Amino acid sequence: MSQEKIPYKIYLDEKEIPRNWYNVRADMKNKPAPLLNPATHEPMKPEELAPVFCEELIAQEFDNDTRYFPIPEEILNFYKVYRPSPLVRAYFLEEKLGTPAKIYYKFEGNNTSGSHKLNSSVAQAYYAKKQGLKGVTTETGAGQWGTALSMACAYFGLDCKVYMVKVSYEQKPFRREVMRTYGASVTPSPSMETEVGKKILAEHPGTTGSLGCAISEAVEKAVTTEGYRYVLGSVLNQVLLHQSVIGLETKIALDKYGVKPDIIIGCAGGGSNLGGLIAPFMGEKLRGEADYRIIAVEPASCPSFTRGKYAYDFCDTGMVCPLAKMYTLGSDFIPAPNHAGGLRYHGMSPILSQLYADGYMEAVSVGQTSVFEAAELFARVEGILPAPESSHAIRATIDEALKCKETGEEKTIVFGLTGTGYFDLVAYEKFHDGKMTDYVPTDEELQTYFNKLPKIY
Amino acid sequence: MSQEKIPYKIYLDEKEIPRNWYNVRADMKNKPAPLLNPATHEPMKPEELAPVFCEELIAQEFDNDTRYFPIPEEILNFYKVYRPSPLVRAYFLEEKLGTPAKIYYKFEGNNTSGSHKLNSSVAQAYYAKKQGLKGVTTETGAGQWGTALSMACAYFGLDCKVYMVKVSYEQKPFRREVMRTYGASVTPSPSMETEVGKKILAEHPGTTGSLGCAISEAVEKAVTTEGYRYVLGSVLNQVLLHQSVIGLETKIALDKYGVKPDIIIGCAGGGSNLGGLIAPFMGEKLRGEADYRIIAVEPASCPSFTRGKYAYDFCDTGMVCPLAKMYTLGSDFIPAPNHAGGLRYHGMSPILSQLYADGYMEAVSVGQTSVFEAAELFARVEGILPAPESSHAIRATIDEALKCKETGEEKTIVFGLTGTGYFDLVAYEKFHDGKMTDYVPTDEELQTYFNKLPKIY
Repeated sequence: MSQEKIPYKIYLDEKEIPRNWYNVRADMKNKPAPLLNPATHEPMKPEELAPVFCEELIAQEFDNDTRYFPIPEEILNFYKVYRPSPLVRAYFLEEKLGTPAKIYYKFEGNNTSGSHKLNSSVAQAYYAKKQGLKGVTTETGAGQWGTALSMACAYFGLDCKVYMVKVSYEQKPFRREVMRTYGASVTPSPSMETEVGKKILAEHPGTTGSLGCAISEAVEKAVTTEGYRYVLGSVLNQVLLHQSVIGLETKIALDKYGVKPDIIIGCAGGGSNLGGLIAPFMGEKLRGEADYRIIAVEPASCPSFTRGKYAYDFCDTGMVCPLAKMYTLGSDFIPAPNHAGGLRYHGMSPILSQLYADGYMEAVSVGQTSVFEAAELFARVEGILPAPESSHAIRATIDEALKCKETGEEKTIVFGLTGTGYFDLVAYEKFHDGKMTDYVPTDEELQTYFNKLPKIY
Repeated sequence: MSQEKIPYKIYLDEKEIPRNWYNVRADMKNKPAPLLNPATHEPMKPEELAPVFCEELIAQEFDNDTRYFPIPEEILNFYKVYRPSPLVRAYFLEEKLGTPAKIYYKFEGNNTSGSHKLNSSVAQAYYAKKQGLKGVTTETGAGQWGTALSMACAYFGLDCKVYMVKVSYEQKPFRREVMRTYGASVTPSPSMETEVGKKILAEHPGTTGSLGCAISEAVEKAVTTEGYRYVLGSVLNQVLLHQSVIGLETKIALDKYGVKPDIIIGCAGGGSNLGGLIAPFMGEKLRGEADYRIIAVEPASCPSFTRGKYAYDFCDTGMVCPLAKMYTLGSDFIPAPNHAGGLRYHGMSPILSQLYADGYMEAVSVGQTSVFEAAELFARVEGILPAPESSHAIRATIDEALKCKETGEEKTIVFGLTGTGYFDLVAYEKFHDGKMTDYVPTDEELQTYFNKLPKIY
């Protein structure tokens, strides 16, 4: 029980790295709702997705029953580049806050992609290679997912084609250069390489692009190019499966020291980090073996859980992808321009949506300025400059720790530090210059998007 | 002896972190030559430096005899934020090269400052705080040292005033924002805050600044402001002392697995990383207990060791700092504008200079394009995007490993991976776009600088 016994950083031995992913769906009584064909509104069949996605990934996507998936040796081998990631006891933060709470964070940013995204990109690249494909396509906004994918493709010798939203391509060239270092081809979107790109450019010659358009280009390129498939970095069930390594490592590290968390906190955009972090803990909760408070933290400017509808919606603005039942703000919803960092997706992982609907999780939304205040405080005492996304979890953790200070409770809090903010310094600059603002959509605005939700019951 | 026994990453336990710095001067028969007063050319006395530097740091600077300096508890405590750093076995690089060589690298980039500079900034900030000072001043070019110093000052509650070369302040705003996140005040240099700044601005209204000018401003600010001193991130003996933690950790990690290196390789600008990495190994060599090949790697565009003179020279372009005997290209020497990254200092650590003059070290210079080729290869197989500085050591390591491939020798090579390249992507972009060039100064050019060396024998 002594604090001194727990080191600042708990690194697992390489032999302790999990050898199986955990599929939380196996323990869910209410499974996530099936994907629907956007044309027929009938449940998607695996074979319908085969032109777009890799075979084994489709199998993972549909599998609600298999509890553990063995992690292929090739992926375990790549893990050695950047895993195990440290579980850090935030002694410095606790001291600064003067809280009796015990705070831990699982730090997934110690790799060149700068985030947890690598956990899924390595898996998706591996299965693409195994299927004998030549390459994969994807879209990226600021470039976090594209960077992670380019690293994985370099390792497996796979071609990597990234459509990057044009405004980011031009204004945020640094992640683009990281991708090029790893051999990816990065195309500003919209481009003349695809029919959809040509069409958009013809209609809107000066457009700076959008994530929805980049998705459409990446999908078109994949289905029209021999030996290519499309890959995606969040929201999907398969992604949460791959990300379960975060939570599994966290649990092994805590178990070594006999620590049982009271509260687990993660930021939530599409849900890939949160779903991965909480997976084994949620499993225990679903099986009635343990109880934890699990808190999703989202930006007040993009509040899918806290203000969205639980309904079938399009996953993409182009409305070509399957429909998913999820907490959504509507597929046309785009956060206000003052919104910094990621966590800008209109929907939410169907798995997490079901768990939230069933009362297994809580959600809070936090304002942007308060998030950066938490980020700066954290950076100064813990030494790591956090990504804006991760800083949502830091904000909520600090708030819970301060509640403990008031009540005197020695709660144990674990949160996910998904990545570093080295490529997000434009947002930090706005914060330092007092130019950061907090914009929250009104109920009326949200209603206009809800009115456009597809009518499926 | 089996490869399998050695993990990819060797992390020391927190209890194994060295508790003493090692002062290689204690084992040198020929001590580094003393600093000279720039006006009188007499050896500097400690008290003459007191208005500029902190007392205990001056004591460390002059101490050629004490072998071990206990690391203060407060510094050991801060180490927990980012140390121990991993010693990585470069299995992936070995495989890619097809070499029988066994390659290890000590990775100092896993912290927000992105480099080994933090090892000295934490020490210098600590001693400043201990002396009861209010703050410290320094200069920074691209911002690596300034970032490291701002992190250390945030931890110890010390004011941090950074003069940043104006062109970097404007064109490389990201590290500036990291410094501001840590509470540092960052002033573009030349500024109106100092007499020297005002003078330069009056004479050259449109100047974009220089490191020499920023040093002059930082020193002036320190000596004219109550409770402030000036700190410096390389070259000085004290800095090498603090950086010895790199080599000490490396040696502990290797000893755990019974590994004895044949070759130790480090990049060399002012010498802080190289001096730290090799310290305990050089100690064994000086005491006749072991032999190692030790190789300094420098850019062909700034070749202090390989083409410089071993002579007394000014440490700064302003010629206000003490004179040091070192390998130098002349204090006016500035690398060609195509030179990317750091390692641009005209001189070299007096300790390393003496060791090189006495034949204890080798030095090689490498061309810029070949350095970035090595960097890209390394990034793709080892997953870490290296700093341009560090990539000089990667280049030389690859060259040695390829020689082993020819001869079949299973040499063990250890090199220092000093940092990450996340803030150097403009240079990577030039490389990808084929716009990187290799410029090497001619003998005639160098001679013009040598002719201006102070006449001291």
